[in-house]
This record gives sequence, C-alpha cells and structure tokens, in this order.
Amino acid sequence: MLPRGFKLCTAEAAIKAPGRADILLVSSDTDAVVAGTFTKNSVRSATVRLTMPRIRAGKGRAVIMSSGNANACTGPQGMKDAQEITASVAGHLGVKERLVSLCTTGVIGVPLPMARIRPVLRTLVQGLGTASLKQAAGAIMTTDTVPKYLVKKVKVGGRQGVIAGICKGAGMIEPNMATMLSVIMTDIAIDKAALSSALKHAVDASFNRITVDGTGSTNDSVIVMANGWTGNRPLTARSPGFKVFRDALAALCYELAYKIVADGEGATKVIAVILKGAKSDAEALRGARAVANSMLVKTALYGNDPNWGRIMADLGSSGIAMKEDRIDISIGRIKLLAKGSPTGREKLAEKEIRKKLVTITADLRMGKGAARMLTCDLSEEYVRINAEYTT
Amino acid sequence: MLPRGFKLCTAEAAIKAPGRADILLVSSDTDAVVAGTFTKNSVRSATVRLTMPRIRAGKGRAVIMSSGNANACTGPQGMKDAQEITASVAGHLGVKERLVSLCTTGVIGVPLPMARIRPVLRTLVQGLGTASLKQAAGAIMTTDTVPKYLVKKVKVGGRQGVIAGICKGAGMIEPNMATMLSVIMTDIAIDKAALSSALKHAVDASFNRITVDGTGSTNDSVIVMANGWTGNRPLTARSPGFKVFRDALAALCYELAYKIVADGEGATKVIAVILKGAKSDAEALRGARAVANSMLVKTALYGNDPNWGRIMADLGSSGIAMKEDRIDISIGRIKLLAKGSPTGREKLAEKEIRKKLVTITADLRMGKGAARMLTCDLSEEYVRINAEYTT
Repeated sequence: MLPRGFKLCTAEAAIKAPGRADILLVSSDTDAVVAGTFTKNSVRSATVRLTMPRIRAGKGRAVIMSSGNANACTGPQGMKDAQEITASVAGHLGVKERLVSLCTTGVIGVPLPMARIRPVLRTLVQGLGTASLKQAAGAIMTTDTVPKYLVKKVKVGGRQGVIAGICKGAGMIEPNMATMLSVIMTDIAIDKAALSSALKHAVDASFNRITVDGTGSTNDSVIVMANGWTGNRPLTARSPGFKVFRDALAALCYELAYKIVADGEGATKVIAVILKGAKSDAEALRGARAVANSMLVKTALYGNDPNWGRIMADLGSSGIAMKEDRIDISIGRIKLLAKGSPTGREKLAEKEIRKKLVTITADLRMGKGAARMLTCDLSEEYVRINAEYTT
Repeated sequence: MLPRGFKLCTAEAAIKAPGRADILLVSSDTDAVVAGTFTKNSVRSATVRLTMPRIRAGKGRAVIMSSGNANACTGPQGMKDAQEITASVAGHLGVKERLVSLCTTGVIGVPLPMARIRPVLRTLVQGLGTASLKQAAGAIMTTDTVPKYLVKKVKVGGRQGVIAGICKGAGMIEPNMATMLSVIMTDIAIDKAALSSALKHAVDASFNRITVDGTGSTNDSVIVMANGWTGNRPLTARSPGFKVFRDALAALCYELAYKIVADGEGATKVIAVILKGAKSDAEALRGARAVANSMLVKTALYGNDPNWGRIMADLGSSGIAMKEDRIDISIGRIKLLAKGSPTGREKLAEKEIRKKLVTITADLRMGKGAARMLTCDLSEEYVRINAEYTT
C-alpha cells in the first residue's frame, strides 16, 4: 500500500546489462515537503552534488533512482548527464527542474549510458502508477539479493497516514551521518523543519549504525517526501502528533537498515553489537564500531565460534578507556567473560551463535555510555562477490 | 649465521597440540643491552605485562617465546604462570629472574598448559646451541605458513657485526606503535638509549606500517638484544657508526614486516599503499591506512580487478582533506585516474595487478604529507582460516 498521492514506475534502461528493470521514478501528484541526508564521503557522486541542494530547499515532486552505475568520479560529464535526466523528467511531468532529484548506485568511474537512458524517461512518466513498492525496490538493487521495502500506518491528529520506504545496499556499507539509497514517502502533512529533524533522528539510530564492510559509499542518500494528502493539520516539531510520526519514521528506518545488513554481501546472519558502561556514548560507539568492523569477529561468527577473545582484542585496540578486570562479554544470553575472567561456557553459547540474529553485549563498567551497531558475518561468498564485481 | 654470543634451543611442549616444536629459548652468553616496543592495545596479555618492565630496565639475558596460547585474558593465574616460567629458566641459567623475558602468541582466554610446559624448561637451557635461526622462527608460528627470519651484516667502527631477527604473525595484524612477536639479536655494542632510539625508528617504518586485518593483537612485542661481542666501542646516538646500525636495523625490521604481510592469512599478494600530497604525514597515514584496511580494495586486488573507484571511496571515507579533481591514482606504473578523470587504461593495469607485489600510489596534490602502508589481499582462504581457528 502506498501513501495517497504517490505513484511509481520502473523501466529497463540496460544501465549495466539488459534483462531487468533498473530505473525508477517516484512521484507525488502534488508538491511535497522533502528532507534528506547524504554521504559525508569527501568524494561525492555528481548525482549527489546535484540532488543535495534541491532536497535541502525543502520542496520536491519526484525522485529518479537507478542502479548499475554510480555516476561517481565521472568528471564534468557526470553533472551534465544528471542535469539532463532531471530536466527531461521534469519536462515530461510539467514541473520545474529543481523539484526533481536523482539517486544513482553502481560502478564508480564509468559515464552513464545516456543513449540507453534517454528513451525510457518519457516511458517512466507515462507509466506512473504501474509499479508496486516491491517492484520499485527491485529496480534499485545491485548486489542485493532481495528487494527491501516497508510500509507503516500512523495515526496523526485523528487521521490515518501512511509511511512507505524502499532502500538498497549490500556492499560498500558503513554510512556515517548519512546512509545508503533510500526513498521514504508519506502522505502526512508536516513542515520542513520538523521533517528534517525527524529524519535526522531516525537516520542517526538506523542507517548510521550499520556496517557491512567499513567503507562509506560515494552515493549514500536518504530522501523523505511528505505530500500532506492525509489532510492532517501540518505537523510542526511542537505538535502532539510529531513524536508519533518521528517514532514511526525511526522504526521504519531501523527496519530498512536491518534489511540492508541482513542482505549484506555473503552474509549468513545479523550481528548486533551492544556496548554498555563506556565513559561516553561517543566512546561506546567507537568501541562498538571497532567490533562491528572486525574481520576477525565477523569470520568467527560465520564459523559459529564464540571467540570472545577477538572481541576483547578489538575493544582494546579501539583505544577507548577500559579495564580488563571489569569487563563482561555475553553472546546472546550466555556470559562468556565475567569481570575479565573466562566463564568456560562456550558450549552453551553455540546455540545462541547459530541464530539468524546474534547479539554481542559487552559491559565495560567505566561509565554510562552506550551504543549499538548492526553488522553481518563475513563469509567466503563476500570475497567471491567482491573479487568479481567490476571489469 | 647467528651474532656471536647468542644461542638458541627449541622444544615441544604441546601447548596447543603435539607434533611440533612450539617453545623457544633465545639466550645471550653474557648480559645484553635490550630494548623493546609493545602493543598499545589496552587489553595486554599477562606475558606482556610481565615482560615490558623487564625490557625497559635495559638489560637482559634471555627471552622465552612460545606459540599456541597467548596467555591473554587469563586473569591472575596468567601472571603467576608467566612468572613461574621465567623464574624456572632463570634458575637453570643461573641468572636473575628479571633478566629473563617471555613472549607468547596463540589463543586468547585459555590458561597456559603448565603441566606440559614445566618439564621442557630445563631441556631448553641444556640444549642451548642446538637450534638454527630457521628452527627458532618455526617454533613461534601459529597460522604462519613459513618461518620468518633474517640476518644482516653491518660494519661498525671498523668491525664486522651481525644482526639477526625472527618474527611471526599472519592474523590479528595491525600493530600500532608496537608490533608482532619479534626478537632481534646483535653482537654490536651499543648503549641503551641509542638502542631504544634505533628500535623506535625501525619499528615506526616497518611493523607499525603493516596490516592484515586491522586488529592490533594483545601480545605484540619486538625485543632487540645487543650483547656487544663484536667488540666495537659501544655506539651512542652520536657515534659515527650509529646511523649505519640504525639503517641496518630499519632494513631488517622492514624486511621482517614484509614477510608477515606476504604470509598474511590467505594472502596471495602484497599490496603497498603509497599516499602522497596529503596535507600532513598524519593525514597521509590515515588515508593510506583506510585503503590498506579496506575489504573492498583487498578483495578487488585478490580478483585482479584494478578497481580504483573503491580506492577513491576509501580515501574519501577516511575524512582526510582532498579535492576529487586533483587526485591521481596509479596501480604499478599505470595511471588510472589523472586529476580526477578516468584514463581508461584498466586493461594495461592487469599485468601490474597480477604481480606478487602490487603498488597503489595516490597523489592528492594538497600538500607534502606522505605515508606508506603494506597489506595483503583478502581471499576466501582468509575467511576459512578465521572461521575455524579456535574451539
């Protein structure tokens, strides 16, 4: 189910190879309030450089998304191509160019195949309303193995609204103050400042707390569009309904981010790393991030090995304040280290470690700082995928 | 060839499993000037905590090294065991306990099998002189596939001296201000301050510039012993011969560190990452380290894919100052990116990328900062080794 006033269409432009839908148009029937967060990588794709100011202006009508080519490191031609695509779609929609944004994902350093993209842009506009949310999510996949989409209903100001989101991402994933490609649509009315604030809150606790391989992409973008068709009195940051909306958006982003990690390249399980008792939240995040990015921890969990020694080595190596003889480490509900002493309960942890979601909890007992990261395990399949991706 | 006045002996203590020599005694016939660098991981093994102050005191006679068990995260018992081992060997040698140090490597969190270690300690002392440098290096291997050792001759003050070193390490490798297990012996006479300074200089440019998997171990240690049997006038930091000695020690450490990377778990090739033109040396190191630790770059090189886009993404993601349109990236002698524009020369780079040593050079053209890191590629074999290592 889509929020009211939104329509989708996908098409095949053979951007990387023929045989699948690889371009998507997300369009609101009327202007929407928009907000976005973007990659902090200092190498940004031409697409991101075009789209950022348009989204930050706060008003938008449509977003084009494509997979197979990132349009990153493509020189001045990359910006020209991005402009041509948005201008063409805006023309077919009959709206101003600045109300149309673009998101691209795929190979870096190759110009967009404009000869194949140009002809389908009119088709995308003419076919609006023909694609489902699932088909839309399918059109932006790269090494993803499943389309990732989600719908939530929210009651705001006595009216039933809808929030729907899609995202993609399986590799080059460690969004930081930003995220992977995601577009979220809602028919709830909300002002620009409140929408930005709700999105930042949601992204900080979701897309910014996941990692697959420790590399932030050049194209990470989340865009949220709110077209107000629910008919509620527009939310502001002080409205009674704002917290409800913010929580629903945060839950939707968390679940989408979870889907990215679960579909991480070659992943067989999700790993939640929870670090408590650090000196500060920032230190907790640094430690949790070190464990979540550890090739040693990720391979151990793939091998169903409750190797808490590697967790200790990574926490210690992260440089945060800790004292070995205060630390507890658990996998699932089984405590393996109690105040720095091994409990010898590895056998009991084996059932926990074979689950689809494995929780590692470490308590440093140094303070009140806490953080949580989501990652996935590291398998031979990850290596195969990434040794064979381009050229 | 060993430096004069040094003797080695190895024995089998079945620390992890029977069937191979796994404990080594390195002994000087007379007291030696000693210096060392140790892990900066805040989780340090009991062994490291025992050995650090003994080495820092500047005088030593013998070092025991064992593989199969790290004696890390072993609680108070770990320290008792380390003390017992060094006291026993000191007793058999007839020297003070504080002149004997210990280095251990292997599984974390399991107590040392003292019942099997105790009986061989006397044997180690009685057999001094029976092991070669190669056999010594073999006794400290864990997932290493080859023993790593090296000998250099140096002429100092008109006399011919010798520096010999062994080291081990294949996984849990990103020594930072420290290194993996290594013992270096020399018969050159040198004072304590000069030896420390030469070692720091050597380690900073060698063991501290390598990474296999981005995790610094709990047990990293390099110890150098200088017993003076060359008979030269003892070197100080101002001696004409000091620079010769320092350069020889640096070259030896660099070559040993190279051997560790070349034998990195599952590695098929060595990757040198050279970053030039950064705003500072510190920024250059941060960027080079990000590329050297990138799972995406390491898998691409394993797949013989000259994927410079991933190098750009990692440099950008590292947070250092850079401007996309100034950057050059080369693999070997082939420039793939010139001032931010793709050269399209990927085909030519294929020969370079199939070499045993692949050099990635990036020039940011922002300043004069430069740094160099050594790493290895990431293969399915790395995952297999680390999914099956303990339990």
